[in-house]
Amino acid sequence: MFQSQLKDAAALIEARLMRALADAADQPVTHAMRYAVAGGKRLRGFLVIEGATLYGVSAGQAVHAAAAIEAIHAYSLVHDDMPCMDDDDLRRGLATVHIKWDEGTALLVGDALQTLAFGLLADPACHPAPSVRIDLVASLARAAGIDGMVLGQAQDIAAETAGRALNLAEITELQANKTGALIRWSAEAGARLGGADVAPLSSYATALGLAFQIADDILDVEGDVEKTGKRVQKDADAGKATFVSLLGLDGARARARDLVDEACAALDPFGPRADVLRETARFVIARDT
Amino acid sequence: MFQSQLKDAAALIEARLMRALADAADQPVTHAMRYAVAGGKRLRGFLVIEGATLYGVSAGQAVHAAAAIEAIHAYSLVHDDMPCMDDDDLRRGLATVHIKWDEGTALLVGDALQTLAFGLLADPACHPAPSVRIDLVASLARAAGIDGMVLGQAQDIAAETAGRALNLAEITELQANKTGALIRWSAEAGARLGGADVAPLSSYATALGLAFQIADDILDVEGDVEKTGKRVQKDADAGKATFVSLLGLDGARARARDLVDEACAALDPFGPRADVLRETARFVIARDT
Repeated sequence: MFQSQLKDAAALIEARLMRALADAADQPVTHAMRYAVAGGKRLRGFLVIEGATLYGVSAGQAVHAAAAIEAIHAYSLVHDDMPCMDDDDLRRGLATVHIKWDEGTALLVGDALQTLAFGLLADPACHPAPSVRIDLVASLARAAGIDGMVLGQAQDIAAETAGRALNLAEITELQANKTGALIRWSAEAGARLGGADVAPLSSYATALGLAFQIADDILDVEGDVEKTGKRVQKDADAGKATFVSLLGLDGARARARDLVDEACAALDPFGPRADVLRETARFVIARDT
Repeated sequence: MFQSQLKDAAALIEARLMRALADAADQPVTHAMRYAVAGGKRLRGFLVIEGATLYGVSAGQAVHAAAAIEAIHAYSLVHDDMPCMDDDDLRRGLATVHIKWDEGTALLVGDALQTLAFGLLADPACHPAPSVRIDLVASLARAAGIDGMVLGQAQDIAAETAGRALNLAEITELQANKTGALIRWSAEAGARLGGADVAPLSSYATALGLAFQIADDILDVEGDVEKTGKRVQKDADAGKATFVSLLGLDGARARARDLVDEACAALDPFGPRADVLRETARFVIARDT
């Protein structure tokens, strides 16, 4: 049931992204953009859609903001995979963009996907009220930029450059920026679309985002390259501090479970209407990809 | 007089950009962002401010949109200079970002500067009306993305890959996207801030953008690295078609002059109030940097 809901939302989001690129010029960079936004779990977009449901906003209405956050996520992956960053040749079981095309194309693909995200939010289809659309733009700019995702990436590079393993507080802050900010934006977007207070979904997403990262660290140790479709054991090989290296495998699992409980508790005000988001939280730490 | 107006606007815009980065975390990427947005003629930002003046919008009000377009311009330069694109080590007489820092930092700097641009437009300080701010965001997304600047860059790469020199119609279209789209947005932004029809400034900017590119091609042939602060003769060395290779030096100069006349004629409805924009057009083809 949950898996099919996730799949349906993913299909809806992918269709919106492909429609946004349907009329783009016939250029390798356009083909590479379609390639880069295809597939994936669409967890962030799903959070937008399910969060919006709580405020009576339909999936058909929320899909534009969902597509926007997936475009940002896709841009960050394409740039992260480049040789000057993580230098990955595999993503979701397929060659990364700079491998299948070239580095210049990968650079432009990421750049244009970020632009596309803001274009999707600014489109009147996203929400009839300009005040809501600009609120989505402003909050996404905070989440994705130098005070959010890019800051997390910079902190990650700085730690590597210094050759110093981070402690738990530092890695928690780094991840709250690097992956947490977009997850928080995703969950909060539903409240923004509904013109409501973002606080309950924000608490949910803060705990969820950290649980997500801990699960990622566990997958990096335990994961199967066949299932994850990306290289594993990267962090251990690089000697980087992770939640697993700091807490141990059992400790990391326990912490992730606690965070999922915390995320679910933040949804109490919504009662059973938020069951899908509760299931999403449990899915995040149970996934094998 | 004109030069001092340009300088005053540049100082105003730079102050806005530095203020936007004042509270950013103390990280190399933040320092590199400040470095990347410092200096330059600020021609695009000046067009925003002077266009706005025609509609009774003050420089203090227009500076936010002016800073946004300069952030986009700066991002495009940082990424263009990277080894996988133009591989330039000199910009405005200084080491480019990936030389002074590294490629990973340059990638993040460009990414975060693009985000910053949209954040500046979404900030209530940019304009009190959400409808105006979202109009600026939507139009900038069109101008900067896969239907605008990035398309022009893709067309440029495609021509190089094909090893085929473009004809005049093709290079005119390429440049209308690659450099023209941002120049058009800059001039039109003033009308958008004033809630007015963008058509007159759009005609002005279309002619101006092309004149600007022709002047750039002339500078690439005739320019002095000491003055331009960047490598010259790059296009000729690469065997690329330019307006100079297609029209000859005298033909290119004549075409640029015609375009400036065309740009000035589009300003007729404004009378002498648009004299600064007329002077800007003449400056664009007379500059030596």
